[in-house]
Amino acid sequence: MAGNSSWHVKASQPVHYEVRLCHRVFDVDRTDLLDAGCPGDGRAPRRFVVVDEAVDRLYGADLRQYLDHHHVTHEIMVVKSGEVRKEIDVVLRFVERLDHFGIDRRREPVIVVGGGVVMDIVGLAASLYRRGTPFVRVPTTLVGLVDAGVGVKTGVNFNGHKNQLGTYAAAKLTLLDPGFLSTLSRRHISNGLAEILKVGLIKDEALFGLLERHGRLVLDEHFQGLSAEGDSAATAILQAAISGMLEELEPNLWEETLERSMDYGHTFSPSVEMLGLPSMLHGEAVCLDMALSTALAYGRGLMDEDECGRVFAVMSDLGLPTWSPLHTPEVLMQALHATVRRRDGQQRLPLPVGIGKNLFVNDVRDEELVSAIELQREMALRGSLEVA
Amino acid sequence: MAGNSSWHVKASQPVHYEVRLCHRVFDVDRTDLLDAGCPGDGRAPRRFVVVDEAVDRLYGADLRQYLDHHHVTHEIMVVKSGEVRKEIDVVLRFVERLDHFGIDRRREPVIVVGGGVVMDIVGLAASLYRRGTPFVRVPTTLVGLVDAGVGVKTGVNFNGHKNQLGTYAAAKLTLLDPGFLSTLSRRHISNGLAEILKVGLIKDEALFGLLERHGRLVLDEHFQGLSAEGDSAATAILQAAISGMLEELEPNLWEETLERSMDYGHTFSPSVEMLGLPSMLHGEAVCLDMALSTALAYGRGLMDEDECGRVFAVMSDLGLPTWSPLHTPEVLMQALHATVRRRDGQQRLPLPVGIGKNLFVNDVRDEELVSAIELQREMALRGSLEVA
Ligand SMILES: NC(=O)c1ccc[n+]([C@@H]2O[C@H](COP(=O)([O-])OP(=O)(O)OC[C@H]3O[C@@H](n4cnc5c(N)ncnc54)[C@H](O)[C@@H]3O)[C@@H](O)[C@H]2O)c1
Ligand SMILES: NC(=O)c1ccc[n+]([C@@H]2O[C@H](COP(=O)([O-])OP(=O)(O)OC[C@H]3O[C@@H](n4cnc5c(N)ncnc54)[C@H](O)[C@@H]3O)[C@@H](O)[C@H]2O)c1
Ligand SMILES: [Zn+2]
Ligand SMILES: [Zn+2]
Repeated sequence: MAGNSSWHVKASQPVHYEVRLCHRVFDVDRTDLLDAGCPGDGRAPRRFVVVDEAVDRLYGADLRQYLDHHHVTHEIMVVKSGEVRKEIDVVLRFVERLDHFGIDRRREPVIVVGGGVVMDIVGLAASLYRRGTPFVRVPTTLVGLVDAGVGVKTGVNFNGHKNQLGTYAAAKLTLLDPGFLSTLSRRHISNGLAEILKVGLIKDEALFGLLERHGRLVLDEHFQGLSAEGDSAATAILQAAISGMLEELEPNLWEETLERSMDYGHTFSPSVEMLGLPSMLHGEAVCLDMALSTALAYGRGLMDEDECGRVFAVMSDLGLPTWSPLHTPEVLMQALHATVRRRDGQQRLPLPVGIGKNLFVNDVRDEELVSAIELQREMALRGSLEVA
Repeated sequence: MAGNSSWHVKASQPVHYEVRLCHRVFDVDRTDLLDAGCPGDGRAPRRFVVVDEAVDRLYGADLRQYLDHHHVTHEIMVVKSGEVRKEIDVVLRFVERLDHFGIDRRREPVIVVGGGVVMDIVGLAASLYRRGTPFVRVPTTLVGLVDAGVGVKTGVNFNGHKNQLGTYAAAKLTLLDPGFLSTLSRRHISNGLAEILKVGLIKDEALFGLLERHGRLVLDEHFQGLSAEGDSAATAILQAAISGMLEELEPNLWEETLERSMDYGHTFSPSVEMLGLPSMLHGEAVCLDMALSTALAYGRGLMDEDECGRVFAVMSDLGLPTWSPLHTPEVLMQALHATVRRRDGQQRLPLPVGIGKNLFVNDVRDEELVSAIELQREMALRGSLEVA
């Protein structure tokens, strides 16, 4: 056969989704939860709902009452919480049950209610089922409200690696109801505050200021606005965090760009988090990384003593660790190495510049890292910068 | 908390991939297979390769020789062929082995060599591994060359349903080498010819003409161009089929449009194919569906007797069935019903208009279907149209 033809296929997949603040999402007078589908043609609506086990214990009755009130034929699948349950088996069980229940994919989006673990599992499952089935997310943790619930990443752990299997798949709609945080443990509120602090540090000095002034209060109040100050602070902090997060995500939804300022706090933390399991939370590892990066920035003259002190103070206010014995030179050198491999051979390490700005560096050497670790330890333990 | 904010995220994911004719892909002088990655930086190239078991038996030595010649550090994973092995377990085994082997995702695309089954499995696995890992496809069946290898669909069977789990994920590059067809069984050549005939019938009268004049010859020659006529016909038929297929796919890569002329032959066939398993091939079920649709078109005056006769004659030439006892009113009514559900409540049934054109109808009733079945049987058995 002659000829050496070649075809170039070019196309572009448009993605559009909504993230909406929605208080009291299970209030029977609210229709947000059902809006995303359009039963329209007179048939009774049907919904397949997946709920985190702990959330079901706390809010399952409200959810069922809501669905019954709206005459929604439904099936509720309760899944166990916890990082160790974030596995492909749950994805497959979901598909079996969903298929058995049967849905009209255009009109009856799957609903998922829970933290990042359950949302990541269901997002993956929905994106695989018949090559994509619409879903609606209702995050119930702070990490879910400001991070896992606003982007498009899905995944499960596999083969000893975090999120080794996953997709990019947008939920049609995410409904953010901070009311769920009333029952969330204080430690998990702190956990979410770490990602909020990240946004403040790299791009939003005003958000950092809000955390400095009201961070401890919103933590104490679980974002429930129990006082006037706490109320307006909770609103302002959530709005700023979500807006900031989405501004960074939107131009890079599929993570084609490797220099991501949102990777601040995520350079050394993956390895440290693994070593710290099962007790360490993601946000805690991220905060340790941010503290180390702050020390690195100080060493390079990108931040001054006062700014460093303020950063460490806010971290403590938010109930987050600034030091861990896991921060050894060996662990952190190896962690940086692993990240360089993930970032295509370059460090692409985001460092803060003062408060609210950042830049990327590629030339951190072992000695510099060792001094920064030492500096971090001093700052964390003394709570001050009288270290040099 | 006050306020009812909402964020709308809009983005667009660009997709670009190449499908390239490439004869003797394992010839050591050709670099196409390694082109897609860019070892560049002086390191020895590494590749993880997945091969269909039967293909490995036939071409494994050539493949290894090729990789060795180019000093490629490699691991070859051989997977069993067959529709029943198209399952999630193989996806997971792939991920384990790939992760153990280790690749640089930017430079070392996974390579898959085999038919539609293996390509669909590996496409899914690669799209899931770390939310997407580049891969290069080398189809070795005719279905692979003109259909499975040119689009972006991946998938495995699950829970008793074909392709119940899958993604849309483009291979960076697909290398089409018709040389592999020399060893493919005649029945699998016919199987692929059914999809080629589909393209001719719905949109390319010239392609239909080629099949009418040379279809039997290219089948006899397994597309190897053993004669001068067979050589130019094989080239022309493959080029037209692939161009036609890509023209239809490109504007609808993610299948957002439900009216797809490429669904011709795919309205009744899914149910019939299931019932015909394990002996019936996909293309055979598709051809039966196309024959039925031809009869429907005749009944509506969209095709004349002569055209119908030519269509049935070409089907026979290509070694494809035009009638099956599975084509009962019960089976086909139920089949249409199931397809209507998949197509969001409408039949959207593509019917041929003469040869090379088509339109969609939504109003086929049971009686019309029953007459068309009868007509199909008559045309198939008598080989002529003296039926009315
Ligand atoms: N997809 C993304 O972009 C993204 C972003 C960040 C994190 N994540 C993932 O999210 C996961 C972490 O999320 P998480 O912190 O929400 O963990 P989680 O889902 O495990 O929830 C934390 C704990 O809180 C409980 N819980 C949830 N809501 C509650 C409520 N309202 N009241 C009381 N208890 C409640 C859960 O049962 C669980 O025990 C990780 O797996 C991480 O990989 C994903
Ligand atoms: N992704 C898509 O867009 C798409 C399109 C069409 C079909 N498909 C899928 O493709 C599958 C069918 O593909 P297929 O027909 O290639 O089946 P297949 O992959 O099972 O291959 C058919 C048989 O031929 C053997 N074989 C492969 N290459 C050979 C060669 N060169 N010489 C000798 N034997 C060889 C295989 O071992 C197998 O036994 C189905 O699962 C279908 O769902 C996918
Ligand atoms: Zn994080
Ligand atoms: Zn087909």
